[in-house]
Amino acid sequence: MATIRDVAKLAGVSVATVSRVLNKNGYVNSETEQKVRKAMQQLQYEPNAVARGLAGKRTGTIGLILPDISNPFFPELARGVEDVAQRSGFTVILCNSDDQGPKEKLYIEVLKKKYIDGIIFASNTLVQEDIEQMKRDNLPLVVLDRASSHEAYSVVRSKNFEGAKMAVKHLLEIGCSKVAHLYGPQELITAKDRLRGYEDVAKHFGWFSPSLMIPGYFRIDGGMAAVEELLSRHPDVDGIFAGNDLMALGALKGLKRRGIKVPEQIAICGFDGISLTEIAEPELTTVAQPIYEMGELAASILIQKIETAAAVSELFELDVKLIQRDSTQKKVMR
Amino acid sequence: MATIRDVAKLAGVSVATVSRVLNKNGYVNSETEQKVRKAMQQLQYEPNAVARGLAGKRTGTIGLILPDISNPFFPELARGVEDVAQRSGFTVILCNSDDQGPKEKLYIEVLKKKYIDGIIFASNTLVQEDIEQMKRDNLPLVVLDRASSHEAYSVVRSKNFEGAKMAVKHLLEIGCSKVAHLYGPQELITAKDRLRGYEDVAKHFGWFSPSLMIPGYFRIDGGMAAVEELLSRHPDVDGIFAGNDLMALGALKGLKRRGIKVPEQIAICGFDGISLTEIAEPELTTVAQPIYEMGELAASILIQKIETAAAVSELFELDVKLIQRDSTQKKVMR
Repeated sequence: MATIRDVAKLAGVSVATVSRVLNKNGYVNSETEQKVRKAMQQLQYEPNAVARGLAGKRTGTIGLILPDISNPFFPELARGVEDVAQRSGFTVILCNSDDQGPKEKLYIEVLKKKYIDGIIFASNTLVQEDIEQMKRDNLPLVVLDRASSHEAYSVVRSKNFEGAKMAVKHLLEIGCSKVAHLYGPQELITAKDRLRGYEDVAKHFGWFSPSLMIPGYFRIDGGMAAVEELLSRHPDVDGIFAGNDLMALGALKGLKRRGIKVPEQIAICGFDGISLTEIAEPELTTVAQPIYEMGELAASILIQKIETAAAVSELFELDVKLIQRDSTQKKVMR
Repeated sequence: MATIRDVAKLAGVSVATVSRVLNKNGYVNSETEQKVRKAMQQLQYEPNAVARGLAGKRTGTIGLILPDISNPFFPELARGVEDVAQRSGFTVILCNSDDQGPKEKLYIEVLKKKYIDGIIFASNTLVQEDIEQMKRDNLPLVVLDRASSHEAYSVVRSKNFEGAKMAVKHLLEIGCSKVAHLYGPQELITAKDRLRGYEDVAKHFGWFSPSLMIPGYFRIDGGMAAVEELLSRHPDVDGIFAGNDLMALGALKGLKRRGIKVPEQIAICGFDGISLTEIAEPELTTVAQPIYEMGELAASILIQKIETAAAVSELFELDVKLIQRDSTQKKVMR
């Protein structure tokens, strides 16, 4: 394999000149640059990205740590990140952390050792210590969706609290007289904000009881289990706001298995806006986040940080939108 | 940051000894190893995985190139790979190639430069040239699911041809009198084998016509578009074998939109066995691949190749299984 020395020799220039061409820093006149590029081509020289990484140069790679690629929300987010990255000449490496703190730490370590230029992190378990470390390592960081604070890095997320309120109000508007909430793990700021939003609206009504808030996981089987629990506590419930769309799909499935009609007997509203909500029967009403745009924005911010070495920390909270479908079709008022 | 020299100095041993401890090769007595480990701890020395990569040592990282993480088949496959990798002390880096040849080539290049120990590839566009190059680079390779040949690397896939035949026979057995096939892109060996399987059974029947084979994409909207085309060609069709489960979900959605009842008017069978088939209404009959096990097997083989440097090339074809659900519930014979 050709080395940088071989290229320099063939081009008749110094190794330092080749390096300047490779890393696009320092002045090289265009004739010399041409000679170097021609020599690289002739020798099929591939600049070693890792070695350049070692020397503190950019490697053109971004790490994206996702908590659960089996939740369609994250592949859609990843698509936005990848499209922007590609347009800017970066490739994206994915890690799937399963929402497990130790795995996330491990992936950060692995990515750092692979000399990536920055990390986009969609996680609940990033702790202050990790952030401080990345700051010391001078590793640009953007946190997507789930961050609880926004010190020392930029955060992109959507308006979970407001969106939850929209969902509950919508269920009441269509005539529901008792609305429950199936909520996700409270380590996740998204799950927490949506629960807060539910409570903020529901607590003012006579039908409200804390036992209408049912814990669960952000998965289909999580929704199925939670709806079972709900029906045993409150057989008279007629509206469900699920903490995310997968839970809503699970709740729908659980209700169907029991022969309960949606929306006639119980109306359901999810959160996220994944495309599976259109596959469900009936199609699911959901509070849609601008998923793809969140990914795009996160990538744009990260790349800007990488390219300008700017240490800005901003919080971007994107608007959500209620998409009404058959699962909350207007009910006859009781 | 501490270097290997600092560790050697503090431990009072040679750099070569520290290297032997790090890479677990060559003899080091346990007292010396203890001293070295203590020095590493004291200095917070982190063996630089990339530098070790440069020196030809293992980095403990596997690359997994997936064609489309928005198809739930692949996250489930990835889960199998990750679980086995984790048990063996490897971490997995994912790349999402969108079934695009140029992107796949790019990811191979990126992964190679990141000094990974091996690649698992689920692709249709891997060409002989890429394979030869990886062979020259001595990069262990396992190809999952979609490979067209199995020279120079091991292949894990399931019995697509046989599975397709099972699907068509099943639709005929439940009383369908005219069975169509919505097939996926023919660059994919899986799509090709399933189409072959369909034809192999269907061509013996009087109702068969090549126009019953409708091209489409392995996505939900691909199934929706293909079923539209099918109904315009053959309004009297009463059985559909879709090339994968996402297409089957799309076909189901398309039929529902037109008010056509499944399975009463048209029965549907998919292929893959993703869990979304249980969410559909009616639940979808499918030819299930052992998805998770395929991922596990691929990872086991790759790790064995990495650890033993064995250049074996084997083909593993796993059995598939018909799972009958409501979308092909027994029809009244006409």
